[in-house]
Amino acid sequence: MRLIALAGLPEIGPGDDLGALLAERLHGVEPSLARFDVLVIAQKVVSKAENRFLDLASVTPSARARDLAAATGKDPRLLEAILAESAEVLRAKRGVIVVRHRLGYVMAQAGVDRSNVGGVERVLLLPESPDESAARLRATLARLTGVAPGVVISDSFGRPWRLGTTNVALGAAGVPALWNRRGERDRNSRPLESTEVAWADAVAAAAGLVMGEADEGLPCVLVRGLRWSAPDVPALDLVRPIGEDLFR
Amino acid sequence: MRLIALAGLPEIGPGDDLGALLAERLHGVEPSLARFDVLVIAQKVVSKAENRFLDLASVTPSARARDLAAATGKDPRLLEAILAESAEVLRAKRGVIVVRHRLGYVMAQAGVDRSNVGGVERVLLLPESPDESAARLRATLARLTGVAPGVVISDSFGRPWRLGTTNVALGAAGVPALWNRRGERDRNSRPLESTEVAWADAVAAAAGLVMGEADEGLPCVLVRGLRWSAPDVPALDLVRPIGEDLFR
Repeated sequence: MRLIALAGLPEIGPGDDLGALLAERLHGVEPSLARFDVLVIAQKVVSKAENRFLDLASVTPSARARDLAAATGKDPRLLEAILAESAEVLRAKRGVIVVRHRLGYVMAQAGVDRSNVGGVERVLLLPESPDESAARLRATLARLTGVAPGVVISDSFGRPWRLGTTNVALGAAGVPALWNRRGERDRNSRPLESTEVAWADAVAAAAGLVMGEADEGLPCVLVRGLRWSAPDVPALDLVRPIGEDLFR
Repeated sequence: MRLIALAGLPEIGPGDDLGALLAERLHGVEPSLARFDVLVIAQKVVSKAENRFLDLASVTPSARARDLAAATGKDPRLLEAILAESAEVLRAKRGVIVVRHRLGYVMAQAGVDRSNVGGVERVLLLPESPDESAARLRATLARLTGVAPGVVISDSFGRPWRLGTTNVALGAAGVPALWNRRGERDRNSRPLESTEVAWADAVAAAAGLVMGEADEGLPCVLVRGLRWSAPDVPALDLVRPIGEDLFR
């Protein structure tokens, strides 16, 4: 397995055709794009291309947002933007707010990032539907290169119980984001113990090592040498249904 | 970044010199082992080499183990072995027991795996100290190859909120298992948002894609092309202190 960070992507802005820009960068790759290649793209550049910016000056915080702002020590307008993206607030304390995003992801800040470019106080929201964003990018790449690669849109998540962030898959297309291996056996013919593998999360974590943290510098990583025999599964299937969760 | 699964490792048993066996396999690798190479090794083979087997016939379940066996539908002797490895039981329901391992890891079954090889009902426990196991393997590899690679001992963990397992780092030596990037800035001179990166967990997750699930077949993966500028940090530092955990 090889991971290659794609260099030379310009700063992405609203309306940019991210798929076309990626296809251009992929022209220089040898050997050329092939089946089982997977492209991992940082959520931020997808959100920017999809103009998921929100001007904080346009936001009027509700009473609830002001309460949570006091509890967390954050900007009330930022809290209002977070609440608008959330189905439920799970934890809030000084410096931290963990929510269930409207799409189900349990994550800090509902994925809302401050982005004070050029003196304007803006935030950047997650894509409307990361799985659909991944599918659109895949379709564009298929049209422009003749090959439909796997596409994973990644974001950096904290975890309970363990320190530090790792990248996970927010969106996916053309890959088994969750790989159900129930019924498979190991080489000693014993049933596999881990029957569901968070495959796209592992791909996102691997790519994160190459993106580094300055993900606006190298937000796209080509992963080669993977093989899979499972059907395509979107990344939203990685979200554990509420009723099956022992830790909320 | 390249990941190469090391083929040809024999079935490992108690007393085998795992470091020497790995050094032999690394002799065939071109270019030869170098600084910044990282070797990821599945916990199971380390535990086997360290004879962390426990014969279930020798285990007498306590009343608590019998209660938990009834709640989970598992063997009372297995539950006794799990309790002996645990500091605290966090959740137990049919088919699932999540504990805080004596070393702090929050995980299913305290890492205790059934291993019914040759008709004997045994379980395999985690290494006594995975960080020390990693350091010993690193020292052996340094002695036999002249190069001290990074070493990560990985295991497959479930997560709250998200389905599927990913590999994480149980033990580490010669790498920054947790990479504190506080104070660093991105290319736009803004402070990095994710200031602590679970670096060794990402390396373990990446290697898991190459090990596949049949980890007794390819339990060791060489990762090349990584660079780091952070001090060595053991994998136990990835465990979030109890007082800082919002989800228990």
